Amino acid sequence: MTSQEIQNRILDMGARARAASRELVKLTSEQKNDVLRAMAAEVRRREKTILEANAKDIAAAEEKGLSKPMVQRLELSPKSLEAIAVAIEQVADLPDPVGEVLGEWTRPNGLKFRKERVPIGVIGIIYESRPNVTSDAAVLCFKTGNATILRGGSEAIHSNTALAEALQKGGERAGLPADSIQLIPFTNRESVTHLAQMDQYLDLIIPRGGKGLIERVVKEARMPVIKHYDGVCHVYVHKDASFEMAADLIINGKVQKPSACNAVETVLVHESIAEGFAATLADLIRPHGVEVRADATLQKFWPGSKEATEEDWNTEYLDLILSAKTVKGVDEAIAHINAHGSRHTDTIVTETESVAKQFMHEVDSAVVLWNASTRFNDGGEFGFGAEIGISTDKLHARGPMGLAELCSYKYLVIGTGQVRV
Amino acid sequence: MTSQEIQNRILDMGARARAASRELVKLTSEQKNDVLRAMAAEVRRREKTILEANAKDIAAAEEKGLSKPMVQRLELSPKSLEAIAVAIEQVADLPDPVGEVLGEWTRPNGLKFRKERVPIGVIGIIYESRPNVTSDAAVLCFKTGNATILRGGSEAIHSNTALAEALQKGGERAGLPADSIQLIPFTNRESVTHLAQMDQYLDLIIPRGGKGLIERVVKEARMPVIKHYDGVCHVYVHKDASFEMAADLIINGKVQKPSACNAVETVLVHESIAEGFAATLADLIRPHGVEVRADATLQKFWPGSKEATEEDWNTEYLDLILSAKTVKGVDEAIAHINAHGSRHTDTIVTETESVAKQFMHEVDSAVVLWNASTRFNDGGEFGFGAEIGISTDKLHARGPMGLAELCSYKYLVIGTGQVRV
Repeated sequence: MTSQEIQNRILDMGARARAASRELVKLTSEQKNDVLRAMAAEVRRREKTILEANAKDIAAAEEKGLSKPMVQRLELSPKSLEAIAVAIEQVADLPDPVGEVLGEWTRPNGLKFRKERVPIGVIGIIYESRPNVTSDAAVLCFKTGNATILRGGSEAIHSNTALAEALQKGGERAGLPADSIQLIPFTNRESVTHLAQMDQYLDLIIPRGGKGLIERVVKEARMPVIKHYDGVCHVYVHKDASFEMAADLIINGKVQKPSACNAVETVLVHESIAEGFAATLADLIRPHGVEVRADATLQKFWPGSKEATEEDWNTEYLDLILSAKTVKGVDEAIAHINAHGSRHTDTIVTETESVAKQFMHEVDSAVVLWNASTRFNDGGEFGFGAEIGISTDKLHARGPMGLAELCSYKYLVIGTGQVRV
Repeated sequence: MTSQEIQNRILDMGARARAASRELVKLTSEQKNDVLRAMAAEVRRREKTILEANAKDIAAAEEKGLSKPMVQRLELSPKSLEAIAVAIEQVADLPDPVGEVLGEWTRPNGLKFRKERVPIGVIGIIYESRPNVTSDAAVLCFKTGNATILRGGSEAIHSNTALAEALQKGGERAGLPADSIQLIPFTNRESVTHLAQMDQYLDLIIPRGGKGLIERVVKEARMPVIKHYDGVCHVYVHKDASFEMAADLIINGKVQKPSACNAVETVLVHESIAEGFAATLADLIRPHGVEVRADATLQKFWPGSKEATEEDWNTEYLDLILSAKTVKGVDEAIAHINAHGSRHTDTIVTETESVAKQFMHEVDSAVVLWNASTRFNDGGEFGFGAEIGISTDKLHARGPMGLAELCSYKYLVIGTGQVRV
């Protein structure tokens, strides 16, 4: 296919997604939940077909010599497919944010105003290897009345196609409008460009994947992009912190899931307790096999370790590595976080309310915590029921993105013939 | 100056704006309001300087042979400067949205969550000729704790510079952090590009001006853009509408301010009343000198008029021209609006609640009205006190953008040492 033909196909998908979005707004919450349950049933019914498609992807990945973790990311099993079906049913059980009244008032001229939550319209999702994103993303977008255009990675193309078909066909039997969920059959780079430039049909694009992918979409997109960038997250240990609590929070933040964006990367310690706290932390963190890269003051508590460099302060390790730095106090901690962090998640450990408040007020991050683990920046832990990701943007959605963040709003104004004077 | 030098200057302004934004979050509402009053006082005090600067722009514009309306747009007077000062004081009197609690809850593990409104950070404003935008935009951004980088048009460069200096110097005497309001001294096209690509410092860019400018910013920007595109606004007259009310709303929507984005461009009429209503409308609209371009059915009521073409349905006339079309009913009206409108403002005139509800629910526009003029899509008419524009976007801000829409939010989480299990 020529580039022009690929673009035309994607434009056609856009036009059909827009048409589907016009039908989606007409569905009631009950109709949508019926559709979701039918999707889950179809995923279960097609278990064999989906696993066969997945086997093709796995075989191709092994042939290409992809690393074992990469192959594992691709892999589906009866168990993981059941988990996908259950997750869809859980989304059906969540309250529908569409139609929620966000504000109501009457003006002196008698006009009645209502601000109401509505679907965004058409959402494009660009993602890399994991095939379960096909279902996660499409289902959350559908629950909120949006049409979805998915563009997955080449490694998972057979799995993604089989899953998307199950959702669309299963859903259609229960009233899902045609073209509500479409998967782009092209996995070349160009298809991302065509999607990102199609602002006549796409209201939002969400890239889910590595920094390279996100940056490329940001550069090319003509519509809003919601980004889920790295988390360079901090724990600042103030001079009055409980050493045990601070060490607990740091260890939990670092070791519970080092690959998570809300994992801790850097510890900042008040200079007046630096050595005492470092001795405690060194003792408690030792069993966890964490490499600590500290500044000159703290390095002696980790004999043989590398001294931290400027680069460490900006690094998301995604690994059992932690950097540690002494600071003069809360002001320097805030300045360091605002300069080196990624506006994601930062914690202060202190017993002093005024210091905690200053930290939470002045640290410019989506989620700021006082005496709690950074790992709580998560839609589930927030009680959102579901999340499509953790936004590092400041517009539209910041932090965990649940169903409400997949919606826009509109104003309804009711009059009795009022004109403007 | 070389392109690289210009870019470096703009990057330096970005870094300084970011630093200012860190100081701005520390100001209380009272401190900000004191700054605003000092700004207003300084605009009054510098009346002579500002008007002298303005005279240079006017002279240059006349020399360049700009049209009379273009020159008028540039012009400042003692009266318009006083209006600018009064507008600043009015913004001081508005409630501060920063710090507003948007949600609060406690999770079973005892963690306390709070969602709080915060400034966005650094906002870039790109605008064309009117110098009063310098003050309007900077003042609204400052009230909401944001640093501003302004890039005005070349025609108003002297006026903009004098106004921006008055705001910054007047404000600084009352505690405005340095670099909170900066005006880019370059007016070449390239300076827009450098600003639009500086996503390390700019959190949001708002282009205020014609479609060409907005499209260029959309294409180049690497950060979120809030767009204020055309309004192709409709009035749909249902079969049970009061003819007088419908004609009133259409005439008000068209003639009160034809250049406004919320002016009516197209009337859609239910076929069963098409001729009767057209006769009434033709009578009532005649004194207002409106050119009506109607479809074949309705054209006879405007003898000698052009028949409407497909292009008319997509046109924002910004003039005393109106298009008119017969439709089979509310479904066709909705489909027409969603296909040809600009998601801005649309009105239905009917006495039937179910039809009105269907229209308001299915028309995909920022503001949908029932028996009221489209001209009410306006921050002032909504009761927002001030507006920076009317967004045609669906993300972050839709419809009139007041102070709240110039804010982001963050989550504060308070614990007692909780870790994630």
